[in-house]
Amino acid sequence: MPLDPAQIETLSGISTATLTTVLLKKGLRNVWMRGTKPLRAGQPRIVGPAFTLRFVPAREDLATPASWASPTSTRAAIEAMPEGVVAVVDAMGIEDAGIFGDILCGRMQKRGVAALITDGVVRDAAGVLQTGLPVWCNGVAAPPSVAGLTFVGWQQPIGCGGVAVFPDDVVVTDDDGAVVIPAAFLGEVLAEAPEQERAEAWIMKQVEAGAALPGLYPMNAETKARYEQAKEDGEA
Amino acid sequence: MPLDPAQIETLSGISTATLTTVLLKKGLRNVWMRGTKPLRAGQPRIVGPAFTLRFVPAREDLATPASWASPTSTRAAIEAMPEGVVAVVDAMGIEDAGIFGDILCGRMQKRGVAALITDGVVRDAAGVLQTGLPVWCNGVAAPPSVAGLTFVGWQQPIGCGGVAVFPDDVVVTDDDGAVVIPAAFLGEVLAEAPEQERAEAWIMKQVEAGAALPGLYPMNAETKARYEQAKEDGEA
Amino acid sequence: MPLDPAQIETLSGISTATLTTVLLKKGLRNVWMRGTKPLRAGQPRIVGPAFTLRFVPAREDLATPASWASPTSTRAAIEAMPEGVVAVVDAMGIEDAGIFGDILCGRMQKRGVAALITDGVVRDAAGVLQTGLPVWCNGVAAPPSVAGLTFVGWQQPIGCGGVAVFPDDVVVTDDDGAVVIPAAFLGEVLAEAPEQERAEAWIMKQVEAGAALPGLYPMNAETKARYEQAKEDGEA
Amino acid sequence: MPLDPAQIETLSGISTATLTTVLLKKGLRNVWMRGTKPLRAGQPRIVGPAFTLRFVPAREDLATPASWASPTSTRAAIEAMPEGVVAVVDAMGIEDAGIFGDILCGRMQKRGVAALITDGVVRDAAGVLQTGLPVWCNGVAAPPSVAGLTFVGWQQPIGCGGVAVFPDDVVVTDDDGAVVIPAAFLGEVLAEAPEQERAEAWIMKQVEAGAALPGLYPMNAETKARYEQAKEDGEA
Amino acid sequence: MPLDPAQIETLSGISTATLTTVLLKKGLRNVWMRGTKPLRAGQPRIVGPAFTLRFVPAREDLATPASWASPTSTRAAIEAMPEGVVAVVDAMGIEDAGIFGDILCGRMQKRGVAALITDGVVRDAAGVLQTGLPVWCNGVAAPPSVAGLTFVGWQQPIGCGGVAVFPDDVVVTDDDGAVVIPAAFLGEVLAEAPEQERAEAWIMKQVEAGAALPGLYPMNAETKARYEQAKEDGEA
Amino acid sequence: MPLDPAQIETLSGISTATLTTVLLKKGLRNVWMRGTKPLRAGQPRIVGPAFTLRFVPAREDLATPASWASPTSTRAAIEAMPEGVVAVVDAMGIEDAGIFGDILCGRMQKRGVAALITDGVVRDAAGVLQTGLPVWCNGVAAPPSVAGLTFVGWQQPIGCGGVAVFPDDVVVTDDDGAVVIPAAFLGEVLAEAPEQERAEAWIMKQVEAGAALPGLYPMNAETKARYEQAKEDGEA
Repeated sequence: MPLDPAQIETLSGISTATLTTVLLKKGLRNVWMRGTKPLRAGQPRIVGPAFTLRFVPAREDLATPASWASPTSTRAAIEAMPEGVVAVVDAMGIEDAGIFGDILCGRMQKRGVAALITDGVVRDAAGVLQTGLPVWCNGVAAPPSVAGLTFVGWQQPIGCGGVAVFPDDVVVTDDDGAVVIPAAFLGEVLAEAPEQERAEAWIMKQVEAGAALPGLYPMNAETKARYEQAKEDGEA
Repeated sequence: MPLDPAQIETLSGISTATLTTVLLKKGLRNVWMRGTKPLRAGQPRIVGPAFTLRFVPAREDLATPASWASPTSTRAAIEAMPEGVVAVVDAMGIEDAGIFGDILCGRMQKRGVAALITDGVVRDAAGVLQTGLPVWCNGVAAPPSVAGLTFVGWQQPIGCGGVAVFPDDVVVTDDDGAVVIPAAFLGEVLAEAPEQERAEAWIMKQVEAGAALPGLYPMNAETKARYEQAKEDGEA
Repeated sequence: MPLDPAQIETLSGISTATLTTVLLKKGLRNVWMRGTKPLRAGQPRIVGPAFTLRFVPAREDLATPASWASPTSTRAAIEAMPEGVVAVVDAMGIEDAGIFGDILCGRMQKRGVAALITDGVVRDAAGVLQTGLPVWCNGVAAPPSVAGLTFVGWQQPIGCGGVAVFPDDVVVTDDDGAVVIPAAFLGEVLAEAPEQERAEAWIMKQVEAGAALPGLYPMNAETKARYEQAKEDGEA
Repeated sequence: MPLDPAQIETLSGISTATLTTVLLKKGLRNVWMRGTKPLRAGQPRIVGPAFTLRFVPAREDLATPASWASPTSTRAAIEAMPEGVVAVVDAMGIEDAGIFGDILCGRMQKRGVAALITDGVVRDAAGVLQTGLPVWCNGVAAPPSVAGLTFVGWQQPIGCGGVAVFPDDVVVTDDDGAVVIPAAFLGEVLAEAPEQERAEAWIMKQVEAGAALPGLYPMNAETKARYEQAKEDGEA
Repeated sequence: MPLDPAQIETLSGISTATLTTVLLKKGLRNVWMRGTKPLRAGQPRIVGPAFTLRFVPAREDLATPASWASPTSTRAAIEAMPEGVVAVVDAMGIEDAGIFGDILCGRMQKRGVAALITDGVVRDAAGVLQTGLPVWCNGVAAPPSVAGLTFVGWQQPIGCGGVAVFPDDVVVTDDDGAVVIPAAFLGEVLAEAPEQERAEAWIMKQVEAGAALPGLYPMNAETKARYEQAKEDGEA
Repeated sequence: MPLDPAQIETLSGISTATLTTVLLKKGLRNVWMRGTKPLRAGQPRIVGPAFTLRFVPAREDLATPASWASPTSTRAAIEAMPEGVVAVVDAMGIEDAGIFGDILCGRMQKRGVAALITDGVVRDAAGVLQTGLPVWCNGVAAPPSVAGLTFVGWQQPIGCGGVAVFPDDVVVTDDDGAVVIPAAFLGEVLAEAPEQERAEAWIMKQVEAGAALPGLYPMNAETKARYEQAKEDGEA
């Protein structure tokens, strides 16, 4: 289920902070993936459908360099990724084996993958940064994936940073990390989030102008009226 | 791949401690599931093929009491379990939502499931104990699974307590916890473990008789000769 | 707000597992206190209003044996406890300093305190057990509270095991641990939980009689009809 | 108890490293708040009296966007902060819900709050940085406070990063994090810390000149004499 | 430095809770080893000089079954233990490799070792219990030590459960765990602890008789006078 | 055992990622030290023999500023360090006491120490950075070592970040952290790692040119032939 360009443009204007507020109001408190941070400061906000990958712990007979040539390998998974997807990798939070290095990230970049998100870590950080692929991860480690992880498949339901992610859920990332919008909630989020973002921007301006918080944030009836007026006047 | 009765009988005579030693000598250091302990003291040693279940984290729209009636539910998984299997449940180590209570454990017991192993916890501990199902778990918690977990399927590769478990691997449990014997290693383990167990029993007798450790454990050449003689004499 | 005897009797018949299910259906997923377990096997189910105590970390100038004589001491807090309350102590999960030993627990028992719940630990476990006070805690440790904790007050909102507890919330404990029923939800819980408990007991009987899970748990329309009939017939 | 400008100036010349050494010599080993780091590199050293805020865990009925309008809200707490205070927020180390975003930090900046310190995290990191408020925290997260936290009050004793903080204790922050000077120790610290800082600076110069450590750091009698002479000569 | 029988007898009458209180009054807050608990309920209180053992993490080339025959092996360490010592083993808190099983514990028991204390775990729990050696540990695990640990020596300073232990420090254990009395403090502890224990026993009797805590614990001047009288009267 | 300049030059051209791959193929999966990161971005790759230091937990009677003048002090250890060594410090992962500050790091820099590696933290980060000593550590903290650590010796086997390190093992560090090459494996690593690095660089070029991963990484027979040809042609 690819996103259409208008959807991507809309979501690219919404912070992950605002998205979590909108989803919480719908009863979803657990949509922000713990422990995944931008690998490089200033990466752009990314929006795309989730393409999931799954690891289980390493067993020495299975997690070997030889396994990299198997049909169920991370290599095969990468070749299956359509352009524009966000690869979301369940590494069970393991921090002492890098899921991918420069070669695999370089290939993802070539294939037009929008970003890589994992609750694990990458290796050869210097090389990964050179590929230009936007990466959100839990840090870096030198050892290869097979030192701690066995790859078992793609496009299955996964957990990533304590959050359930299903193929085709929508993922949005920025400096605050990565948030999943469940596919079934996409329409509502697209409808409501821009207004939330707009209201908070107007509130921030009032704060900059010296306004006190009570009655402003959240808005009471009087503030709401002022805000509606500002919108009419093209000032919000 | 059911185990035959002779295989079960042989493995029932081997401690999980000995099994881990035998597997380590073959290069497998990561076969003991962390954080899963007998729910009741004195549970018998259990041997059986793994039947795997998998959870991801809870998302409020999916992890609901209503989901218990879905085709991909723990209920359906239990009805798919053949007699004699050991159910191994990947709960990602989550300790604040019980995967099963008395009703599900009672049904597993009725179906002839040999044991339940999880790196998560069970709920309604008093009721679970009454069902008589042997359980190895990480403790108990009152909340239902949906408070923290979303069920996603069965008979897939899983991680349990930091160990990879594949359907039809063999699981053995005792007071020291639960060990997985990868299916491909079963033959070797059946061939070698009984001798290891026998040698350690003979060594223990020497210790009880006052022998010092150096040269005895591990055995040097002289001790080995004495042990071989003892075997011939029917004393080991 | 003391509980009346009928309320206590009703709740004494409901497991904490059932209470968490009832509260989850009302949107409350976080009511079970993590890390607090029965100090002694087989303690009775306890029901009572929360009487809260609060610690912050130790600072060597404040957390001293001399502080035990101060007006804001654990001693003063205990003397303020009415009969029948459940003392709930926020120890921030600290496991290396015992909040109370035999003397303080003995005094609580004398005052008719119903139980002590903490996400911390007690000290002088042998002595505490002798007092007969029912205790749910996170283990035992020899050092006194002042080795790690500074006491700061009572009957304030606290966190205990990752759960918010307010004075006069109702606490219920059993082998699965301790659950808080927010005061505002008490009426609904009293109204609905007994039926939930009754239904689960009837389901368990069907399982014991060999029934399969799908359609039974949760009940489909046909099963519901059978259950309603059983109730009419006095068989559920 | 506001600090006078001379006190602030003196403490602004002392590193938190030196402050912890001075306090340790007085028996206080636990004054540095764990897990709180500068949000932006190169933030200036900040000195001010602590203004404390306190959260407990989230309960879905209480921790709602609606609660932000309650009289016991973070908004009310911020409006109560005098100019020059350091806001110290007990978030129990929770890392998956941001205590404040750009709007609340913007308001604190407007009110002349000197800095924000928390063992929790902030949200909308990009926006918070734009407000210019100096922040020490445990990272960033997108979700709002109510996803994990319930606000319960201000100017109470709190724990922050495993350290007890009381209103009007003095807080000093720099690149090494945040240290609390208990109010009762302020006089002694002001009297002794500058000399400690001066001595260490002189020692560092000797190291740069090639001196070996034994006898230099800590100083033996001969070195002490040289140092005293250097002070007389205006060279230390 | 063996303890003399009178010292052992005196300390055998003092709980570890009381010992930590006495040591805290002398400025030692960190003497109780975290994470080590009785392997069997009801083990007697043990007193003895520490005999230390030290592990570092496993490296596959060193941590092998073959290493068990090396001169720097756990076997050699055990043969070097004098009668009456308490073996204290630094396993860095590792919980997935058992430091010793039945054979090594059996040999320690034969050699008259008073007890085994570790912040790690033992293996073959059933076998270890049969040897009769009193053990305090952090749980049980099936894998052998070499699955996670490399043995490096004995009678060196170690950390155990976050506490520094030096050879010939005195260790006391009971249901609350294990406490180290630094060798230099032994005289003072022997002189003061019995009186502390006696006073607390008298206070407990007052509590049982219904006395309130303020003024009693800690004792105010009036209570102290009553206690002194009780001692004279042979009633304390 | 100093390294010769040619060995240092060779290893300076190999990433720690490649070293872990080479060592894993020899059965060593645990050679990368967890939790130690560059203190400053862009530090050069460092190669040198390990010079080990060891701490145990703090005990208030031993871990005092006075102890800094003892013969078994960190000061004495630093004066014993030969030029070119990499100091590797076992701080047991403790994050709330800085092992060294500017003065000790300045002295190490003066003595020609190549780098400081620890699983603990440093203090006075600003001052340490000014010394120019390359540091890999687990963060920064203001308190002095004696707030949490007791120094016990140097050039002993240690654990650092969950890895065994022996004096004269070789340590290599870069942006991915620090890896130990056991002394016995140095020859093999020097012989094989450069070819591994060369092959991966050639593969990366193919990826940049648009090649797909299967058959390329790892190389199948055809790719291997192409690579060998490229080497002959001076293009790899």
